[in-house]
Amino acid sequence: MKLVTFEREGKRYIGVQVSQKVMDIAAAARTYAKGMTESQVSAYAAAVAGDMVSFLRTGEEGMAFVRILMDLALMNELHDTHTNVWHTLEQIQVRAPILHPGKIICVGKNYQDHAAEMNSAAPTTPIIFAKFSNVISDPHGKVVKPLQSDQLDYEAELAVIIGKTAKNIKSEDAFEYIAGYSCFNDLSVRDYQMRTSQWLQGKTFDQSGPFGPVLVTKEEVDPLKLDIRCYVNGEVRQNANTSNMIFDIPYLLEFISGIMTLEAGDVIATGTPSGVAAGMENPKFLHIGDEVVVEIEGIGELHTYIIEA
Amino acid sequence: MKLVTFEREGKRYIGVQVSQKVMDIAAAARTYAKGMTESQVSAYAAAVAGDMVSFLRTGEEGMAFVRILMDLALMNELHDTHTNVWHTLEQIQVRAPILHPGKIICVGKNYQDHAAEMNSAAPTTPIIFAKFSNVISDPHGKVVKPLQSDQLDYEAELAVIIGKTAKNIKSEDAFEYIAGYSCFNDLSVRDYQMRTSQWLQGKTFDQSGPFGPVLVTKEEVDPLKLDIRCYVNGEVRQNANTSNMIFDIPYLLEFISGIMTLEAGDVIATGTPSGVAAGMENPKFLHIGDEVVVEIEGIGELHTYIIEA
Repeated sequence: MKLVTFEREGKRYIGVQVSQKVMDIAAAARTYAKGMTESQVSAYAAAVAGDMVSFLRTGEEGMAFVRILMDLALMNELHDTHTNVWHTLEQIQVRAPILHPGKIICVGKNYQDHAAEMNSAAPTTPIIFAKFSNVISDPHGKVVKPLQSDQLDYEAELAVIIGKTAKNIKSEDAFEYIAGYSCFNDLSVRDYQMRTSQWLQGKTFDQSGPFGPVLVTKEEVDPLKLDIRCYVNGEVRQNANTSNMIFDIPYLLEFISGIMTLEAGDVIATGTPSGVAAGMENPKFLHIGDEVVVEIEGIGELHTYIIEA
Repeated sequence: MKLVTFEREGKRYIGVQVSQKVMDIAAAARTYAKGMTESQVSAYAAAVAGDMVSFLRTGEEGMAFVRILMDLALMNELHDTHTNVWHTLEQIQVRAPILHPGKIICVGKNYQDHAAEMNSAAPTTPIIFAKFSNVISDPHGKVVKPLQSDQLDYEAELAVIIGKTAKNIKSEDAFEYIAGYSCFNDLSVRDYQMRTSQWLQGKTFDQSGPFGPVLVTKEEVDPLKLDIRCYVNGEVRQNANTSNMIFDIPYLLEFISGIMTLEAGDVIATGTPSGVAAGMENPKFLHIGDEVVVEIEGIGELHTYIIEA
């Protein structure tokens, strides 16, 4: 399923995207669900609140419930003209799938060719760093270019969204703890990133984490072999496959959960391949008016427009 | 005022500590407040939920309301035997003042003597790095020594707690945006911190941020000249004054809010003075059974006990 967080008439909802339409989970539950179990009620309550993290916490049972609702809603789609179960994409505003992740854990230099373009050896231990949730920016959103820098750079990344509490997990069990995947753009202000030893100040500018548009549930894609690309104004800048990660997703989950407890809704940005502006002899940083697209096979396209402050 | 988050019989509350007693804000509002204004109702609702961040969002009006309640409760203390307004410290469990800060922004090498002991030059730009909220650990709490390292180190720090949304603020206005101060121990797992270029993995182990015991509101202390000490099993390890910070609190707020929007409840850990184990010729790292105390003038003592996994 392709889960989405969306807004309509100023209220927030969660839904499932099917082709060019989105099913409102709460409306579908009101229309089709009879005699809900406790976990179904929890999933319904999360949907009413438009709260993806609370929905993810309902786990496999919540997911199964939504799949049933989707089947019923698809069967009845033509009759559902008065129930608000289905919206077209034009009728809604798609938001980032998770608006306030508890953690955004980024992996640095996780593709060999990117480490090389940044003049680094390939790491032998994952390099992790943070962004805070002030970075979250909606798909098809406008990102303000920071006033204090002309070195705004893109980094196309596959985002892993955690589905349930994970501590000290083994790599072979990693997929149990994953809810799904999305596109992420780890926008980086390079001069700020590099002027002290710690990258945080160049990584956590407001809006510097475009995210979405959908959270593809884990059974839909094999995250270990997805094409990933980044375009700026239509020009291909990054073009790689997630199979080229130095540390793969199961390894990363074992590594990270050995240090910190992961929670539903936490996001792991798994690193970017080569092709960023900072790696070029004459860096083509982002300018006002640019459109950046992160495209990941089986997930979708994340469009971002760079605007003036 | 000394604000506290506390638990009693499994429920969470917020209160005000006066000497060895704590006033339950919600109980005091029920007992003494008549005809509350809208912001007083918000402050009351936050207190009922035991939610310090929501209380801070009620701003100066919420604070003023609690001061009135405290005056009334102090006047009536002897008569209040049935209202649950006052508890002794023995009757409650004091928690960290904020349990899930949206951001924990740490400042690295912000005391000259600490930069020197870590073999670094004094920074000319603040070095900032992150901890996630999984680190928050209660005062008088037990912190599990990580299994994978013998290099657990203490860092006594003054924590600044943000009181309201702050973006691009000027240093001269900084105190407007501050709710208050507390003690913080930036526990660091040194081998993990140093094995890649980015410190995060050694900084965000579960429980590695003891915090509290009280949030002292800003009018009570001058944060620019407070004695700060750290003791391990009674031995003084760090002994300094916050006047020795390289970048003072107003400067840090201007600097950080120029990059990211700060929100009520965000925590800035302002850096540690010299005396950490990692700076010693024969580092005295923390062991199972150790008691660490961070003591800050006018705020209090934050005790932590290191235990086995």
